Amino acid sequence: MSDAFVARADSETAYPDDLRGLVERYLAELDFAAVGRASRLVEAMRYSLLAGGKRIRPVLSLAVAESLGRPPAAVMPTAAALELIHTYSLIHDDLPAIDNDDLRRGKPTCHVVFGDDIAILAGDGLFAEAFRLIVERQEAPPPTVLTVLGEIARATGVQGMVGGQYMDVTAAAGDDDDLRLLHSLKTGRLIEAAVVCSAVLCRVGGGGGTGAAPGTRSADSTDLAVYRAFAREIGLLFQVVDDILDVEGEAAELGKAPHQDELLHKLTYVSRFGLEGARALAGESYARAGRRLSALPGDTAKLRGVTDYIYRRTR
Amino acid sequence: MSDAFVARADSETAYPDDLRGLVERYLAELDFAAVGRASRLVEAMRYSLLAGGKRIRPVLSLAVAESLGRPPAAVMPTAAALELIHTYSLIHDDLPAIDNDDLRRGKPTCHVVFGDDIAILAGDGLFAEAFRLIVERQEAPPPTVLTVLGEIARATGVQGMVGGQYMDVTAAAGDDDDLRLLHSLKTGRLIEAAVVCSAVLCRVGGGGGTGAAPGTRSADSTDLAVYRAFAREIGLLFQVVDDILDVEGEAAELGKAPHQDELLHKLTYVSRFGLEGARALAGESYARAGRRLSALPGDTAKLRGVTDYIYRRTR
Repeated sequence: MSDAFVARADSETAYPDDLRGLVERYLAELDFAAVGRASRLVEAMRYSLLAGGKRIRPVLSLAVAESLGRPPAAVMPTAAALELIHTYSLIHDDLPAIDNDDLRRGKPTCHVVFGDDIAILAGDGLFAEAFRLIVERQEAPPPTVLTVLGEIARATGVQGMVGGQYMDVTAAAGDDDDLRLLHSLKTGRLIEAAVVCSAVLCRVGGGGGTGAAPGTRSADSTDLAVYRAFAREIGLLFQVVDDILDVEGEAAELGKAPHQDELLHKLTYVSRFGLEGARALAGESYARAGRRLSALPGDTAKLRGVTDYIYRRTR
Repeated sequence: MSDAFVARADSETAYPDDLRGLVERYLAELDFAAVGRASRLVEAMRYSLLAGGKRIRPVLSLAVAESLGRPPAAVMPTAAALELIHTYSLIHDDLPAIDNDDLRRGKPTCHVVFGDDIAILAGDGLFAEAFRLIVERQEAPPPTVLTVLGEIARATGVQGMVGGQYMDVTAAAGDDDDLRLLHSLKTGRLIEAAVVCSAVLCRVGGGGGTGAAPGTRSADSTDLAVYRAFAREIGLLFQVVDDILDVEGEAAELGKAPHQDELLHKLTYVSRFGLEGARALAGESYARAGRRLSALPGDTAKLRGVTDYIYRRTR
């Protein structure tokens, strides 16, 4: 860890609330154009989508764009789509059949307000609308858009978020490898996609090649690799801190019932390594994230702000 | 209705089981490459995906390609993806929180075998993997692939399948317009996408234009319109017949508990127009479908076979 990084980290670079504000405004203005009697479905989608939060994924996308000298609008549809997907995953996760959470960010969860049936459909709807948003609104050459869509489809499928959620509902008896894999899939892949998709849209790594042949639609190049490595580290950091907060948190401050994971006998970094062990892991991960960040080009102040927040947040 | 069509219809053009066989083989060979402990998730996805059925949506895609002189492989990834999406919608629909169906095609439904939690995730996983399949495997110029993805995203979102499912769980008191809208969204849009996406991939209507600018990624041209009109008609026909079978069906033959919709006081063509009224509607729709079919170019024998099956099936 460089001294410069320590110094800056100690001064606690602020979370980029300007970018968060842009995201909030864009999400609030999204028009799902419900037909006929589907308005309460849209209400349920918007209830969860606009429930607040730090918007870490889209803010990361916007911060990457800014570091590369591109305006927020250049990546906003994709950034917002990732928040739609994150919201969909929270709604399904909170269902009685899965985590059975009644409270999220201090508000009753979607199924508590709208019923299980509408909550399931609200999640499904957000997922579909996320893809629609990118296809219809993301300005970029078609091969680049396809690269982005491929990254997101992989990040959300069996080898991504859904695979991680599956492990989470069944992994009580897992080992360390399972724990790392679970979280890299469940939380990490979408955070990774937020960074990588933005870099791809900003033409890092050539923007996904010619894209003429299927199979080449992957976002990998030497240049992109540094973004992916940074994203993976903050994804890990996010989850370790999340597990610590889950044990330390107070219901009022955290906005959800604390010890929830403990009650469900889940495999977490704390259940695996103890509270002190998890804190040590978080510190190491934060240090690695700082080194990864130093490898990125441009003015990465806002990316640093997100990283600091992920490490230092208390809720 | 032309005399030629009546004559051919009376001879009952056979369902294209050759195309269905190709679809079955392709689906069975799909490798979701589960990581770690997600193998039971993949098992649940495959359990429902490979539970049989006529594969109407992908067979329609293949039949459109054949009528335009293109091989099945030219559209297969997209055709298969539509079956993944159809399967995902069935899994979620069957959940206790929605339709609460224990039996589907004569087999216990996904949640009965794997639990509600895994069934929800299996549906989510199939949806993501459907997009991945198209992005990674569908060979076509990137603008054309984007047109296909846009068509599918719209067909599955709030203005499509999910919107229709929402109306279905809430529309007991709806009127005739609601009934038509409900089914055009819930069932019709995906059938429409099967026909339209295949036509787009076979370059009907120029294959989606240059695709350079977002907003132009829609599959609409004069040539495509005849495919869309045909598809919408057989989508309507499918649902009217489905409603009739739901009342007439025997549990053993239909593979699910009959009168299910009636029990749930759902808005159906039979509950709205009576059994005889619904039969008359089906006959009229079938006649219109025949005329729409006659407007399509090429050898449409297999499309006729699917249409005849949709009208004459007894389960």
